[in-house]
Amino acid sequence: MATTDRGPTVIVVGGGFGGLYAARALGRRGVRVGLIDRVNYHLFQPLLYQVATAALSPGEIAEPLRAILRKYRNVEVILAEVTRIDVDHHSVTLDDGTELHYDYLVLSTGARHSYFAHPKWESTAPGLKSLADALEIRRRIFLAFERAEREPDAAKREALLTFVIVGGGPTGVELAGAISEIARHTVSKDFRHFDPRQARVILLERADRILEQYPPDLSAAAKRALEHLGVEVHTGTGATDVQPDHVVVGDQKIPTCTTLWAAGVASSSLGRQLGLEVDRTGRVAVQPDLSIPHHANVFVIGDLAAFRQPNGKLLPGTAPVAIQQGEAAADNIWRTITGKPRRDFHYFDRGSMATIGRAAAVADIRGLHLTGHLAWFAWLFVHLLYLIGFENRLLVLVQWAASYVSYERGARLITGPWQVGTRGSGPARGD
Amino acid sequence: MATTDRGPTVIVVGGGFGGLYAARALGRRGVRVGLIDRVNYHLFQPLLYQVATAALSPGEIAEPLRAILRKYRNVEVILAEVTRIDVDHHSVTLDDGTELHYDYLVLSTGARHSYFAHPKWESTAPGLKSLADALEIRRRIFLAFERAEREPDAAKREALLTFVIVGGGPTGVELAGAISEIARHTVSKDFRHFDPRQARVILLERADRILEQYPPDLSAAAKRALEHLGVEVHTGTGATDVQPDHVVVGDQKIPTCTTLWAAGVASSSLGRQLGLEVDRTGRVAVQPDLSIPHHANVFVIGDLAAFRQPNGKLLPGTAPVAIQQGEAAADNIWRTITGKPRRDFHYFDRGSMATIGRAAAVADIRGLHLTGHLAWFAWLFVHLLYLIGFENRLLVLVQWAASYVSYERGARLITGPWQVGTRGSGPARGD
Repeated sequence: MATTDRGPTVIVVGGGFGGLYAARALGRRGVRVGLIDRVNYHLFQPLLYQVATAALSPGEIAEPLRAILRKYRNVEVILAEVTRIDVDHHSVTLDDGTELHYDYLVLSTGARHSYFAHPKWESTAPGLKSLADALEIRRRIFLAFERAEREPDAAKREALLTFVIVGGGPTGVELAGAISEIARHTVSKDFRHFDPRQARVILLERADRILEQYPPDLSAAAKRALEHLGVEVHTGTGATDVQPDHVVVGDQKIPTCTTLWAAGVASSSLGRQLGLEVDRTGRVAVQPDLSIPHHANVFVIGDLAAFRQPNGKLLPGTAPVAIQQGEAAADNIWRTITGKPRRDFHYFDRGSMATIGRAAAVADIRGLHLTGHLAWFAWLFVHLLYLIGFENRLLVLVQWAASYVSYERGARLITGPWQVGTRGSGPARGD
Repeated sequence: MATTDRGPTVIVVGGGFGGLYAARALGRRGVRVGLIDRVNYHLFQPLLYQVATAALSPGEIAEPLRAILRKYRNVEVILAEVTRIDVDHHSVTLDDGTELHYDYLVLSTGARHSYFAHPKWESTAPGLKSLADALEIRRRIFLAFERAEREPDAAKREALLTFVIVGGGPTGVELAGAISEIARHTVSKDFRHFDPRQARVILLERADRILEQYPPDLSAAAKRALEHLGVEVHTGTGATDVQPDHVVVGDQKIPTCTTLWAAGVASSSLGRQLGLEVDRTGRVAVQPDLSIPHHANVFVIGDLAAFRQPNGKLLPGTAPVAIQQGEAAADNIWRTITGKPRRDFHYFDRGSMATIGRAAAVADIRGLHLTGHLAWFAWLFVHLLYLIGFENRLLVLVQWAASYVSYERGARLITGPWQVGTRGSGPARGD
């Protein structure tokens, strides 16, 4: 970072919702900020499943961090990986060995999916956290149909046309609904050797209902909406084995070539460098002002933070929580700089919502339960509102309107490693 | 392919402009067609440089072949690689060993860039033919700026901010103009340790003028427009060496970390399997009806064909030529099936155009020479018109309108292999 004498320096690690909103709030107040991320863009995570299911292109839900923060000359974006954090000496070390000093640190490096005790399931059943994950899932879904078209064996074809989603939270529900729509509408007339509408989409949830964090009536409504789309919803049951050609559920073996993972998260490993205890998923317990014990100048926010509310419950790892924590951490830093007392963080829950397919959703807005079209419009409005970048909003709106009318999905490209033949394999023509 | 008794079978290899338009024309007439491609989409090549320079997303210039051909139940899309062609036994072999019989074959597998006698330059100076190429070029352009931001050494920073484009045809001209605009406008305020407007963009052309295939006055107009954008145009000179940190031009060594290749093409190797002579760039000499000598049921079209016009000149490898040849080959097949004599192919030259930056272009429309804004609007109109898919047209129009107003580029993501630090390196967070 450029060294000047303009007061304290804040280092923010991670350009997701928490880090970006913190950097913006500090940028607005003229504080010197260095925002470090390993990628050059802010990703609008809530729409990532739409990239995985070809409804949107990566560029439509990502915005360059430099462009978002351009107008704050006091904010510097640093494309780098943090390899070490030294809270005693107030410094972070980057991948190229550079050591950066901070007066305040905001750590918001998020989470990735967790396979609990089964790390080797990861290559078989990809999860959905990054753009690369989304493109990999998109590739697997559409390649499965292509392989089915060239598969002469009926049993193998059936396995290719069976999609299993492990985990019935919002991501699992959204993926299952979208994949079922792809099979029943988008590609329903695209193949000549099988009927894509016969594809099976199976959603597995270990708890006794899907969307467990929602009120029971909304879980039930979501289940009905999914079943209406042709999804088989299995609750009270999880996968006990995941293999490339099948999954085991209870005493049942389900032949499938496409298993997707939406079942658990583990926080970024950087949290472990703070010298504090972390919980089972790697989260750091933070104090009411979002700082960590013994280091009042270090804040942890977003999915990496375990924030216990006054009612004893931990806050979930969602975008609204991260956004509000980012702004609250920035506010507490500003208060400290200007000699005011810090404020405890209070989460204002505006509600939660999940979509099921093209025009249905469930929403819990401060006790008001919405389902169906109405919930879907609410979902649409809120997501467009929070999507960063005017151009992105317009493009996403165009894509949604077009898909709504035509059931088409604008980004149905199979890119990356390629294997469609039953015997042969080879790289795609460079694509 | 499904076997039925509905008359002769046409196999089309390659889903670019030639193959797609041939398959469509045959599909409309109810002929049984198998269209084979290694990728699942038709790529709108003329806008590929806009993906390489982050103005458009891949999904916006690609449309699934199955979606385009969906309504022709007699057309089957086969996602596969052709490994062998046997013109004597009328069959093609796929990567998985499947052998497909044809009555008529249309070969339109196109071209890739050629490095002439310097194949090892390929990894240093990527060319632009596929979506993967475009994303690789996009990654290199934007990573160069990121690396410059973290480079303390002034000479090294200068090399990072020097972009060399080898080849002054339409692709080279379009790339050079777009990169100069990125530096001077899009990212001009995004960095804190250097001024992106100091970046150098150098266009090298071996001939004595750029856009050699255009009339001289348009070449001169294009050169002026490029220079106005800050591009250094060097004609009558090529690169004699290409290394990761410099290129050699005449007796000059230009330090640069980003060299792009727009200098030559070589046709697909499948042409060599026809048992005929091919020219220096691998093209197959075709007869006036687009079939090959000795095999009246085999047609070669597009970039793979060397078609000599009555005036003795070979047709260039452009989209309009491929489109017209695809339709002409389909027509000659249909004439043969229905017992009518074939027609010789005549290219109808509607004109050629190339863009220079955001709002300038040169166009030669049947002798009418346009430059500047007017040519740019003509370019815009024609490209939107030929872009396949209504949704794509709308999205591209939105992107263009937004960039026109804001100089912003909606797809500025750095994806793929990642190396920004001067010492360290590591994978991006999965993106």
